[in-house]
Amino acid sequence: MSQTRIVLDQSEIPTHWYNIAADLKNPPSPPLGPDGKPVGPEQMLAIFPGPILEQEMSAERWIKIPDEVRQIYALWRPSPLCRAVRLEQMLGTPAKIFYKYEGVSPSGSHKPNSAVPQAYLNKIAGTQQLLTETGAGQWGSSLAFAGQMFGLPVKIFMVKVSYDQKPYRRLMMQTFGGEVVASPSNQTKTGRDILAADPDNQGSLGIAISEAVEATVTTPGSKYTLGSVLNHVLLHQTIVGQEAKKQFEKFGEYPDMIFAPCGGGSNFAGVSFPFLGDAAAGDKRAQKIRFVAVEPASCPTLTKGVYAYDYGDATGFTPLMKMYTLGHDFMPPGIHAGGLRYHGDSPLVSQLYNEKLIEAVAVPQTATFEAGVMFARAEGIIPAPESAHGIRACIDEALRCKASGEPKTLFFNLSGHGHFDMTAYESYFGGKLQDFEYPAEAIQASLARLPKVG
Amino acid sequence: MSQTRIVLDQSEIPTHWYNIAADLKNPPSPPLGPDGKPVGPEQMLAIFPGPILEQEMSAERWIKIPDEVRQIYALWRPSPLCRAVRLEQMLGTPAKIFYKYEGVSPSGSHKPNSAVPQAYLNKIAGTQQLLTETGAGQWGSSLAFAGQMFGLPVKIFMVKVSYDQKPYRRLMMQTFGGEVVASPSNQTKTGRDILAADPDNQGSLGIAISEAVEATVTTPGSKYTLGSVLNHVLLHQTIVGQEAKKQFEKFGEYPDMIFAPCGGGSNFAGVSFPFLGDAAAGDKRAQKIRFVAVEPASCPTLTKGVYAYDYGDATGFTPLMKMYTLGHDFMPPGIHAGGLRYHGDSPLVSQLYNEKLIEAVAVPQTATFEAGVMFARAEGIIPAPESAHGIRACIDEALRCKASGEPKTLFFNLSGHGHFDMTAYESYFGGKLQDFEYPAEAIQASLARLPKVG
Repeated sequence: MSQTRIVLDQSEIPTHWYNIAADLKNPPSPPLGPDGKPVGPEQMLAIFPGPILEQEMSAERWIKIPDEVRQIYALWRPSPLCRAVRLEQMLGTPAKIFYKYEGVSPSGSHKPNSAVPQAYLNKIAGTQQLLTETGAGQWGSSLAFAGQMFGLPVKIFMVKVSYDQKPYRRLMMQTFGGEVVASPSNQTKTGRDILAADPDNQGSLGIAISEAVEATVTTPGSKYTLGSVLNHVLLHQTIVGQEAKKQFEKFGEYPDMIFAPCGGGSNFAGVSFPFLGDAAAGDKRAQKIRFVAVEPASCPTLTKGVYAYDYGDATGFTPLMKMYTLGHDFMPPGIHAGGLRYHGDSPLVSQLYNEKLIEAVAVPQTATFEAGVMFARAEGIIPAPESAHGIRACIDEALRCKASGEPKTLFFNLSGHGHFDMTAYESYFGGKLQDFEYPAEAIQASLARLPKVG
Repeated sequence: MSQTRIVLDQSEIPTHWYNIAADLKNPPSPPLGPDGKPVGPEQMLAIFPGPILEQEMSAERWIKIPDEVRQIYALWRPSPLCRAVRLEQMLGTPAKIFYKYEGVSPSGSHKPNSAVPQAYLNKIAGTQQLLTETGAGQWGSSLAFAGQMFGLPVKIFMVKVSYDQKPYRRLMMQTFGGEVVASPSNQTKTGRDILAADPDNQGSLGIAISEAVEATVTTPGSKYTLGSVLNHVLLHQTIVGQEAKKQFEKFGEYPDMIFAPCGGGSNFAGVSFPFLGDAAAGDKRAQKIRFVAVEPASCPTLTKGVYAYDYGDATGFTPLMKMYTLGHDFMPPGIHAGGLRYHGDSPLVSQLYNEKLIEAVAVPQTATFEAGVMFARAEGIIPAPESAHGIRACIDEALRCKASGEPKTLFFNLSGHGHFDMTAYESYFGGKLQDFEYPAEAIQASLARLPKVG
């Protein structure tokens, strides 16, 4: 029986995160305030603690992972690297297909890789409560777990419609000890104003962000956390790609192409940045890798957006960030069930894309769920819809290899399982999903509302 | 960082299952027909294929695991053996606590350990379709996965109330390619008769079994499968305990006590039989292990039942089996949310209990969910309610160790995760669960309806 899965020993958990900011060709564009001037640390310190901000702005190439964080990582890390032999056979491709499986984590995705250090760094900075928002609940459940690990209370503003209709993730947060509040809530002025005008308001991610940030600045000892987009979040995720490098070495293989879903960018960054770092350091093999960020055709940020300063949130509350964006008030259609709904993208990923170090592709949603089902039936893991985007792009390449006869080595990050997303699969099986490509004029319209900078 | 998890290499997947029938002190009591005479193989062949029956009745100590089965096992096996250091710290106990985690499997429990060989043995015997029933869906989803692995269609009769109210497991079965039918259905005479009399009938496990068996005997090429109780199912599960032995060796530890939930018995058998085999072979350390089967106080088969011949199902359709039973029409109260609802127990486990080679304990349900939440908050895994029974008993022992100062080594089988059972946790958090101990007279009443044999 040939080996199809490499699981490292706990002692092989990487000791440092890799910070790609140290290897960028051009300096990153700073976040800007409403006045068009760079946001100073003092403004950021109102919502983030010092040790987090230090990482956010660091130019050090390697940042030590605290022992306390590695000990919690060890509850599930290193995660396995697997060869999808049965999927290869199903496709009849000469390509070799590998995947890193992050669904083994407590919340079932890659998100705890950043939630744990964020909770730890807040703990040592004296933070007494963590606040955040969550839509479907991936980030909220990861932070609830992480807070519990360090005895730090976590309050999560959860979009009301998800709170009511997706109770399973809410219950996961509660089981991990998190306090979950349906948003809009009576706990903030933002929430109270909205409920006064519309008692039946079902909430939105924008409202939940506003509530979480308001609660942070009005509650002494509280800090805010974010599960993607920002530099320190992407930094923490590099543990994924570093483990994968060791595992490929043990397999005696090396990837020709790397695929990962890309919404805010933390999943893509986690698996690709360490290889990009090798490329920057002169590694010839790494320089040949093609890095493919995969996004939904319903929210085609990299493939159809522009590289410009825009707000990080829908309501214009956050600083302006230089990134690929579809416009901060862009909303994917209701028919879109696959996640990755963010209008923008991480500034780091955006810069790499702008400098043509990485590629991007948009995939339609029915084909994405089709790929998810194929993978489940071949490999026995039901992927999260987000993760299925990476699988789709990888399968498409494997089929191109079948046509051309090329035995490429393909690698994707399976960022999570779909145990809490089965209703999206139900929509797919029931024929209720459609493909939707955003009309160019709709994107032009939201882009026309980009903030004017400088 | 000291090691807290041992993951074996795929090449270390055991090559044989251990058959405890070879080591029983007394010959097992055969299944009996309605006439009180042993059931012959020809009757069993109507619903099970030859290779399965061969295993069911084998007295060989070691039975080879086919390579094709080991290859599918390798998708998730060997499963990890972990030390619950954070749980030990939370309890402040001098005991060491270890658990084997079977939730890494495709369906999230130990059930595929038997579903995969059952599908394979049916495939090589020429079976064209597998039929089964499922309540909450653990077994159904495992068999759907296993059938898919060998290209064997699987039809699952799912109790209607679960089909309607617990769509997530149904969707998992469908994603793995299984056909799921709400029972009672129009596909069998049993179902049609029930629906004719009561179109809104919500179904029961007894009805679903009857439908699956009727469909088997009336559909050429079909065979029936069962996920617990029978000898061959327990045989397949011994892969768990065999792996654990290797892993304990690498840890340099050895268990003083082994805990596992016990409903039909497959989970308990899987983790304990290989150690019982060592004890039978004269291993002094193994002879000192205390084996504890843990059952719910709401369905106390071993602790409150009698050792007698009874039907395997509620309606008296199956052969009579010698086992601990509360009476075949015993029903745990509706308030019971923790699974393990079977009125009887595996004949093999029953015989071992009767011969005092193993112990049993019943735990109340609120304490069981409390243990599940403690474990989740310590170790980051939300256990299935069934699995939480074993955790409860283990925690109780760890607390006794705390009082006595004894540094015992405790081991339990974490048979699955609770991702599809979050509504049971919701009932617990909402204070809707009560403890229920069955009144002795109620048990006496159902025992009075035991069939008269001989």
